[in-house]
Amino acid sequence: MTATTAAPNTNKSYDIPASMKAWVLGDPGQLTLVEKPVPQPGAAEVLVRIDAIAVCGTDVEIIWKGLPAIIEGGPPFNKNFTPGHEYMGTVVKLGVGVDEFKIGDRVAVEVHAGCGRCERCREGMYTSCLNYGKNYGNVKKGHRANGFTTDGGFTQYAVNNINTLVHVPADMSDEEATLIVTAGTAMYGLDVMGGLIAGQSVVVMGPGPIGLMGVAVAKALGAGEVILTGTRDNRLEMGRKLGADHTINVTKENAVEMVHKYTGGGAQYVLECSGAPTAINDASRMLKRGGRICLAAFPDKEVSVDVSALVRNNIYLFGIRGEGKSATHRAASLMGQKRFDAKLIHTHTFSLDEVPKAISYARERIDDAIKVVVKMS
Amino acid sequence: MTATTAAPNTNKSYDIPASMKAWVLGDPGQLTLVEKPVPQPGAAEVLVRIDAIAVCGTDVEIIWKGLPAIIEGGPPFNKNFTPGHEYMGTVVKLGVGVDEFKIGDRVAVEVHAGCGRCERCREGMYTSCLNYGKNYGNVKKGHRANGFTTDGGFTQYAVNNINTLVHVPADMSDEEATLIVTAGTAMYGLDVMGGLIAGQSVVVMGPGPIGLMGVAVAKALGAGEVILTGTRDNRLEMGRKLGADHTINVTKENAVEMVHKYTGGGAQYVLECSGAPTAINDASRMLKRGGRICLAAFPDKEVSVDVSALVRNNIYLFGIRGEGKSATHRAASLMGQKRFDAKLIHTHTFSLDEVPKAISYARERIDDAIKVVVKMS
Amino acid sequence: MTATTAAPNTNKSYDIPASMKAWVLGDPGQLTLVEKPVPQPGAAEVLVRIDAIAVCGTDVEIIWKGLPAIIEGGPPFNKNFTPGHEYMGTVVKLGVGVDEFKIGDRVAVEVHAGCGRCERCREGMYTSCLNYGKNYGNVKKGHRANGFTTDGGFTQYAVNNINTLVHVPADMSDEEATLIVTAGTAMYGLDVMGGLIAGQSVVVMGPGPIGLMGVAVAKALGAGEVILTGTRDNRLEMGRKLGADHTINVTKENAVEMVHKYTGGGAQYVLECSGAPTAINDASRMLKRGGRICLAAFPDKEVSVDVSALVRNNIYLFGIRGEGKSATHRAASLMGQKRFDAKLIHTHTFSLDEVPKAISYARERIDDAIKVVVKMS
Amino acid sequence: MTATTAAPNTNKSYDIPASMKAWVLGDPGQLTLVEKPVPQPGAAEVLVRIDAIAVCGTDVEIIWKGLPAIIEGGPPFNKNFTPGHEYMGTVVKLGVGVDEFKIGDRVAVEVHAGCGRCERCREGMYTSCLNYGKNYGNVKKGHRANGFTTDGGFTQYAVNNINTLVHVPADMSDEEATLIVTAGTAMYGLDVMGGLIAGQSVVVMGPGPIGLMGVAVAKALGAGEVILTGTRDNRLEMGRKLGADHTINVTKENAVEMVHKYTGGGAQYVLECSGAPTAINDASRMLKRGGRICLAAFPDKEVSVDVSALVRNNIYLFGIRGEGKSATHRAASLMGQKRFDAKLIHTHTFSLDEVPKAISYARERIDDAIKVVVKMS
Repeated sequence: MTATTAAPNTNKSYDIPASMKAWVLGDPGQLTLVEKPVPQPGAAEVLVRIDAIAVCGTDVEIIWKGLPAIIEGGPPFNKNFTPGHEYMGTVVKLGVGVDEFKIGDRVAVEVHAGCGRCERCREGMYTSCLNYGKNYGNVKKGHRANGFTTDGGFTQYAVNNINTLVHVPADMSDEEATLIVTAGTAMYGLDVMGGLIAGQSVVVMGPGPIGLMGVAVAKALGAGEVILTGTRDNRLEMGRKLGADHTINVTKENAVEMVHKYTGGGAQYVLECSGAPTAINDASRMLKRGGRICLAAFPDKEVSVDVSALVRNNIYLFGIRGEGKSATHRAASLMGQKRFDAKLIHTHTFSLDEVPKAISYARERIDDAIKVVVKMS
Repeated sequence: MTATTAAPNTNKSYDIPASMKAWVLGDPGQLTLVEKPVPQPGAAEVLVRIDAIAVCGTDVEIIWKGLPAIIEGGPPFNKNFTPGHEYMGTVVKLGVGVDEFKIGDRVAVEVHAGCGRCERCREGMYTSCLNYGKNYGNVKKGHRANGFTTDGGFTQYAVNNINTLVHVPADMSDEEATLIVTAGTAMYGLDVMGGLIAGQSVVVMGPGPIGLMGVAVAKALGAGEVILTGTRDNRLEMGRKLGADHTINVTKENAVEMVHKYTGGGAQYVLECSGAPTAINDASRMLKRGGRICLAAFPDKEVSVDVSALVRNNIYLFGIRGEGKSATHRAASLMGQKRFDAKLIHTHTFSLDEVPKAISYARERIDDAIKVVVKMS
Repeated sequence: MTATTAAPNTNKSYDIPASMKAWVLGDPGQLTLVEKPVPQPGAAEVLVRIDAIAVCGTDVEIIWKGLPAIIEGGPPFNKNFTPGHEYMGTVVKLGVGVDEFKIGDRVAVEVHAGCGRCERCREGMYTSCLNYGKNYGNVKKGHRANGFTTDGGFTQYAVNNINTLVHVPADMSDEEATLIVTAGTAMYGLDVMGGLIAGQSVVVMGPGPIGLMGVAVAKALGAGEVILTGTRDNRLEMGRKLGADHTINVTKENAVEMVHKYTGGGAQYVLECSGAPTAINDASRMLKRGGRICLAAFPDKEVSVDVSALVRNNIYLFGIRGEGKSATHRAASLMGQKRFDAKLIHTHTFSLDEVPKAISYARERIDDAIKVVVKMS
Repeated sequence: MTATTAAPNTNKSYDIPASMKAWVLGDPGQLTLVEKPVPQPGAAEVLVRIDAIAVCGTDVEIIWKGLPAIIEGGPPFNKNFTPGHEYMGTVVKLGVGVDEFKIGDRVAVEVHAGCGRCERCREGMYTSCLNYGKNYGNVKKGHRANGFTTDGGFTQYAVNNINTLVHVPADMSDEEATLIVTAGTAMYGLDVMGGLIAGQSVVVMGPGPIGLMGVAVAKALGAGEVILTGTRDNRLEMGRKLGADHTINVTKENAVEMVHKYTGGGAQYVLECSGAPTAINDASRMLKRGGRICLAAFPDKEVSVDVSALVRNNIYLFGIRGEGKSATHRAASLMGQKRFDAKLIHTHTFSLDEVPKAISYARERIDDAIKVVVKMS
């Protein structure tokens, strides 16, 4: 990745306390603010002082249901586990041998650091690491997924593998920088479907944060027609501001028909971010023959799928988790170039002491919250 | 493609009659032997004297249910339509400008000739041609799918676009040559999943003709472990003869568990040829994280799918139809090199007059028929 | 491709004369204005009334040296051949079966229509058609390269395969539309190197028309750092206007050193448009290990190359000709979205009668000409 | 990778001495047998008792000229450096957290372990690691290239990152197992050109060890026509035994003409293993338009290259070093399946005490040596 313009190397040094405030997960839904020792970075790691963290829908899933977090091989409850993964901050200490980052660098953090030794990591697919969650005891393989399999960011400091870090431009606010990883997930979704979307038609299903960033990234990459589907007009309106050429409120219009109308015969790509039970069937009907679907969301239960439509129409379907293939770097670059205004989806801000309140806003969409950010100071 | 050793150019000429015997489809299930004019090859086409044709399961679907054939924009019944697509024969007449083939060349025929003008054909995905079935009246776009959208091979002569032809080696029998397209479909399935399967583990689900050829092709390409699943022991035994390292009778063993045992943690690829309702769920559980599924078959109805398993495990799923990307040429080359013995799956032979009987054998699996071939003389 | 907003279907009809004015090539360097019959479109073709055509450096090569044009298997001299390939116009007549375009549509034209029947065309690589130039007599295979192997655009009308056409937005001038194919070549160069350049560093060598469009397209696709090298400051300045983050005048600065400085260790991609004898060596030294070079230009003679640098640094090198893989459609889409101002490189305009003068301006860079356009009326 | 059948887990333990015999490089060409401490494996590493090692042409380059070895940032002379990289052996000690291998496992070793933290490693291109050679002092980044940047195998024990290890089947001799990495390099060369070579024509230039293994691997993967070029008839004859369909002695025949004859118009792929000054020009003339060249060898000096031929014919050229993308695993699998007899290229065997003699045989091709193996006991 080309370095985006980084904060100047100030040779600052930071006073790092021995302990820090951290929210930990007890029983489902219970978060308690405790003191924890500040962790120490190892080889290929740095210590990041967390400056801001956004709340993700998956955080809510983890806090109430446990999944998909895996701590010491099991559910994350009552294990002194700190959730949260969409954070950014300042490098305050370097592990041995690290010269890729400097003290004082502002960084955003992607979730996954692969083990580097399994078949998938060896081929660059580190978000599919075969040693996922093997961080404890005898099976410590080096894989880390912040806030999923290792401590996350609802705290003051966190250790991070340098592979998860991306520089934050000097003129980008902390709040905006927490959105880099969300944009990175959308970018990854477009990448795995082929990446070359300039001039192509893209449907984004579901105007949540990833979907809205999907609209913005697709348009920034030169997509010809970007169509956003959803149920809430205000979210669709936000999608228009982020670059959607057309929006479809699926409670009022037939989305499949409208996509065919807008694209003149079917879309090339669908980025599915809704998790709706009918999403695969709808997507396969929105596409031209030979089209591609990326699933970045999924329903809780098994759903009924028209498999024959996938086969007869040569549909390729890509399931993804997270933001692999350095897509976060690409997203950060686009945001650094001000190709779209990610800040539009940031709606609320709270302090570290207010993490439970912040999570409530995100969970219950209080005051139509989209992205709720916890700002440390 | 490198030419496989072709029959010598004998500068033969052939007496071509004005009319020919052809089976045509009336009402569903009704085939009648009629006289039809022998068709004339146009530019980029040749006339093939059909020497042998195999019965495919899709022929049965078309004859009884109509789908997926589309003749003049609708079902194929009572339209003087001749079904059948797995044929081979001898080039007896050349269209204008054809020098890629010579009179007397023995050829096998793949199903699809793309229109050459739509977006998919322009990118080489001719089996996903966006002008599929547009062969009639004002929308004649050049697309042809033998026995699906244009007349097929249960007859004596057929016109074919040169793009659908592959040379048959001199030492390969007519019967074996009808199996090239079946092996080509299996090859295509392995291609779309990545192609580089040397040393990798492949599960083939369903020991029908495509599945059995899938086993043979996978092993010929150097796959490390090839595992075949099915319900009939004699079919599985045939799979072993074609190269399967392991077979699993799903009525007796837990296929997911056995695949994990045989592969030491999950397979890389699943080639699904069974059409079973549980196939996608089973396949996603057989795979390592990041694995790939190719669907070459599908169930009649919508089925329940665990979409979250696809997303959480980064599964890619490829729906295919037919044998694109010149896979038929690759398959023919492997068969010409005698890398596997496709003849094993050829079980019965009939004459042109016996086409309905041949189809019954295939449809009802009389006498455990696998591939039933109609030999012209 | 998604349709860019096309001119409305006006159901216009056009009076098409029987003959037209056309420039034809006699001896090297000799162009004569003659009357020719207006050609008739065949299947999958339309007749285009030429509204504007730009002069390309390759036109100059063809007119004075013959190459790379091949007319009836040999040099293009004294064969009634009309050169010129960067043209746009209006569809005035449809061949049989054409409904992809309508009478009155404004279109830009890419150079190559593949034969559709060779191995390369079957895989979508139509600019590498193995039947290149086989348009005559017994070897008429359907390949066409306007102004290279078939008549081109320094005339009033031309027949074109629909595969070569892309819609021109209503609000784009004729002059700007002639630049679509130039931008398409640059897009193709970026495509073949991988396409996913968002956030990546790209060096463009040579600020001719393709290089300048390369800068614009790279930046439009989100490239992180775009660096342009050349010898003329005014051209480099134009590159800055089109999006270059840095420019290097190679007569004043060490380009390899400056690229390493600007990129912090080497670029990802080099798009070589200079044809300089040292271009490959310079490019391989500008790149990080594992970088990629696309050659869109080449020197007249053999040059000395440090092959060991390519091998030791895992450099991939892609030679291209023209604008394959529908890159012209992608470029047209970006231009339709006004992602960059291609008009900047259009410097001079002449009439059809002034073609020799237009070509002189382009050849001799009179008045610092970059793109010289012939506007028909 | 699917495990090839590994040696049984015997839970053996091995007596590991404190010191070992090792050849170290003094001045150019000077090897001395010394005592060194046995190294200790770290995290993600194992200690391998070396059982056999083959001599590679690159070893000779390193010992006499230093390059491409980089020890502590400079030439490898008089630094207590042990060369040698084509070795195999037995795992005798496990680093912390290693359960991928067991004590007693027989393993072959590929050269490169990437740093796992640079851009190239993150995308799976570990042989293009941007931290190549950074193993010392403050820039210890984790990259290792055995016998190039860290100690190699002309000794009794070596530490290896588990990423470099591949299981050796129980029925494969030590001597044969040293050839896995050579076959892996050839496999990698075919991989980077596209991998799907079943039915395609491949020219291998240069019948050295990599070229001969290239012939064998290409044929095992189903290549349609494999053509080997060289200057020595006995080497070409060995190529025939390994699967070449045709051989060309370039001192007696025109190789370009013969390739066109054998392939009917040009080859698809050229794997260049000769390092001849004319190799690129010859290769580009042997190929069909759109063909691909992989350079696995290179001349000492700059050479004259017809760049225009690369551009006009859309040639892609891939420079490679070593055996990335897990190609060694694929090669080991093919050898484990006995798809070809690599042992044919093993001509001479010496003991550890005879390393200088072994190297002389390889260097001077004494007694027509191809692969010279040092067997430890």
